[in-house]
Amino acid sequence: MAENSPTRGCMTIKPYGFALWDNIKNALDHEIKEVGVQNAYFPVLIPLAMIAKEADHIDGFATECAVVTHHRLKMNDEGKLAVDPESELTEPYVVRPTSETIIGESVKNWIQSYRDLPMKLNQWCNVFRWEMRTRLFLRTAEFLWQEGHNVFETAEEAKSDMHLMLDIYADILENWMAIPVIKGYKTDDEKFPGAVDTMTVEAMMQDGKALQSGTSHFLGQTFSKSADIKFQSREGDFKHAWTTSWGLSTRSIGGLIMTHGDDDGLQMPPRIAPTQIIIIPFLKGDNDDKILEYCQELKQNLKQAGMRPEVDVREMRAGDKTWDWVKKGIPLRVEIGGREMEEGNCTVTRRDLGRDSKATLSTNDFVKNAQSTLDEIQTNLFDAAKKQMDERIIDADNLADARAFFTDDKQGFVRLNKSFWGTEEFDKICSDFAVTPRCVPIDTPDKVLIGKSY
Amino acid sequence: MAENSPTRGCMTIKPYGFALWDNIKNALDHEIKEVGVQNAYFPVLIPLAMIAKEADHIDGFATECAVVTHHRLKMNDEGKLAVDPESELTEPYVVRPTSETIIGESVKNWIQSYRDLPMKLNQWCNVFRWEMRTRLFLRTAEFLWQEGHNVFETAEEAKSDMHLMLDIYADILENWMAIPVIKGYKTDDEKFPGAVDTMTVEAMMQDGKALQSGTSHFLGQTFSKSADIKFQSREGDFKHAWTTSWGLSTRSIGGLIMTHGDDDGLQMPPRIAPTQIIIIPFLKGDNDDKILEYCQELKQNLKQAGMRPEVDVREMRAGDKTWDWVKKGIPLRVEIGGREMEEGNCTVTRRDLGRDSKATLSTNDFVKNAQSTLDEIQTNLFDAAKKQMDERIIDADNLADARAFFTDDKQGFVRLNKSFWGTEEFDKICSDFAVTPRCVPIDTPDKVLIGKSY
Repeated sequence: MAENSPTRGCMTIKPYGFALWDNIKNALDHEIKEVGVQNAYFPVLIPLAMIAKEADHIDGFATECAVVTHHRLKMNDEGKLAVDPESELTEPYVVRPTSETIIGESVKNWIQSYRDLPMKLNQWCNVFRWEMRTRLFLRTAEFLWQEGHNVFETAEEAKSDMHLMLDIYADILENWMAIPVIKGYKTDDEKFPGAVDTMTVEAMMQDGKALQSGTSHFLGQTFSKSADIKFQSREGDFKHAWTTSWGLSTRSIGGLIMTHGDDDGLQMPPRIAPTQIIIIPFLKGDNDDKILEYCQELKQNLKQAGMRPEVDVREMRAGDKTWDWVKKGIPLRVEIGGREMEEGNCTVTRRDLGRDSKATLSTNDFVKNAQSTLDEIQTNLFDAAKKQMDERIIDADNLADARAFFTDDKQGFVRLNKSFWGTEEFDKICSDFAVTPRCVPIDTPDKVLIGKSY
Repeated sequence: MAENSPTRGCMTIKPYGFALWDNIKNALDHEIKEVGVQNAYFPVLIPLAMIAKEADHIDGFATECAVVTHHRLKMNDEGKLAVDPESELTEPYVVRPTSETIIGESVKNWIQSYRDLPMKLNQWCNVFRWEMRTRLFLRTAEFLWQEGHNVFETAEEAKSDMHLMLDIYADILENWMAIPVIKGYKTDDEKFPGAVDTMTVEAMMQDGKALQSGTSHFLGQTFSKSADIKFQSREGDFKHAWTTSWGLSTRSIGGLIMTHGDDDGLQMPPRIAPTQIIIIPFLKGDNDDKILEYCQELKQNLKQAGMRPEVDVREMRAGDKTWDWVKKGIPLRVEIGGREMEEGNCTVTRRDLGRDSKATLSTNDFVKNAQSTLDEIQTNLFDAAKKQMDERIIDADNLADARAFFTDDKQGFVRLNKSFWGTEEFDKICSDFAVTPRCVPIDTPDKVLIGKSY
């Protein structure tokens, strides 16, 4: 899916991982367009002075940026390529860690009156935050994401938009990626720098750690004031707008891997899988052409029925192919040899149920039922993850119980009365065990969830 | 479509421009996947030492890079946000101007034997080249593109791949964007730094200047040697691979604007237009709901027939709406008022033919014929541009005629015998009139085209 790159802290996303990201992108892009969001593109380099405009924002991001200070390389006296000291910029640029500031600078000119609102913009792009300890997909200096930036007339509309976008993230994560999430509010210490409210969809990985899988922020008038985004209101006077921002990144792929992986590797939720069904021909030199033809025909039939099948025609041992696709987590594996072909059959194995599910069935029946089998696998993956998460959310009546949970090194989240948040012992538990408040769930607004996180 | 951004030399691509880019992307992405290309993603920052590996490549790019030298900002003694001098990097990074080097570093580990070849990779991304004199879409410091990087066993395969990818570009430009192009080879002085051969699709803008609209390079073993991309051959020994690279960028949008624009603004070729048909309700307070319903129904019918219609429901005067869509170049404009509705009609104007084409027809007939009208507009736009280009390619028997052409400030290209290339007077014409060799066309391999360019 990905590997560490020669650039420190950055990853290379390999074709299989990128095909997955493309599917996530397409699903999410479709949903945001349905609610009136338009894509656009803003510069990757942000002038330092622009970042400096919003004080809270700086505190959150300034310590971890890639800074462009020169615009030319040249051969130095030793004949080595080096930075040309004469090309120093009077004003340095920052490689965007996020784009609230620069998008605000453009948008303020696009908005004159309330008639121009709401304005909902999104960009799919790369962002960069200097990271020392990196981990593939979960924490890398550069990552890919979408960042949405919406502008409204009223605070109410903006707040409701924060919820709407969070619901879309929950839908993508739960119904496409089969990752159960808890929707909630971040506590003050965990908010996005500059936000009034930050909402999150928190997932629980198999090791019981949390992964913040998408966030949606109600920014109040913080950025509309620093960028001076004003509009003429229905009453004729000029007002600062209310804004939201919302992002989901390639981090979510890390969440998928750590939610559905098992000892044999990855498990791809069918709805998002680049390949849903892999067809492996077993060739023995006899009738090989006919077997391949049979496989291709099966592929065509599955494709026509709206699925994503592939035939593996590589020059490799069939056993090695099988193992390769198991590791990649293809939901359904179909094996076809001479006997299957002659009898109009195929041998099918489900990735989620493993070897025990292996069965030989009529190819016609398989084609008829394949989509519902894929749907079943999708549901199974979600249900298993949901059960595991629910079992690992432990209620604690007091901080002593919470401390005991982490002292015993138990996996999961502790659910505590929100009133404990900010007390001395609460903070001490957090620092003793490297635990953080994950969120105040929408469903239990008087509780706070705490846990370890990625 | 786009505007200058607060970041010097960079543009902001506005929603309408980005929707066009999305359509170009989708069409091209589909075609390259059909020939076996897979998308992937590589880091935006390239270590200086890696860029330095390939000497010719450096000469071509080193003078125009954004260089990252620090990784932190902090408040200075005056309380202003500034670069933290203690965060200087031991090795600077360059914001990618193109990715041959860093992709080579990864790909060399992905290739062991001839069985892994061909390997065809592409990334859709942003690139950065420091530019002093910029122009929206045509020349900006940052732009969006795809860069393809293919690896082969033999020189023959790689050369034929260079042609294949160029043909795909020609298809996208001619058949989707309605921009006629000339396919040809770049002369030695105009090649991509490090390439053995560079092929180009050259378009001619309405002012007679050339726009290099896509390039495809046969890189020989230049980059496989500098990155050490080796494979075990069919004979069992290890050989350096043969590579190509190929790119098409948001520049092509500049080409579209300058090919199809007229006094009234843009003209969008239907096949690539974000909106193909705009429906404008003429509301007078009478029957407004019914008129809007009629418009929405028409939209649904056109959509079901596979077209991209929109209804303009903005609070604006209908005349202002009309003018807005004319400027945006929507191929077909449909106006519907109370009378049209009652008679089951609509009033349709073609953007390419203007006011004279305005006609009231039965809405049913319009729906039936709209797709073929769009096809006709597509063809018309291409034919008009092709005719204009062909008329402006002038044959010159000698350099004196070529000089006369540019002295008279005529618009277009001069076609000369290739043997003139590199002569003293040839070079002098080029420098006297800021003219460059555009290409040696495939169709006339003994000729060279020269002209002014963007």
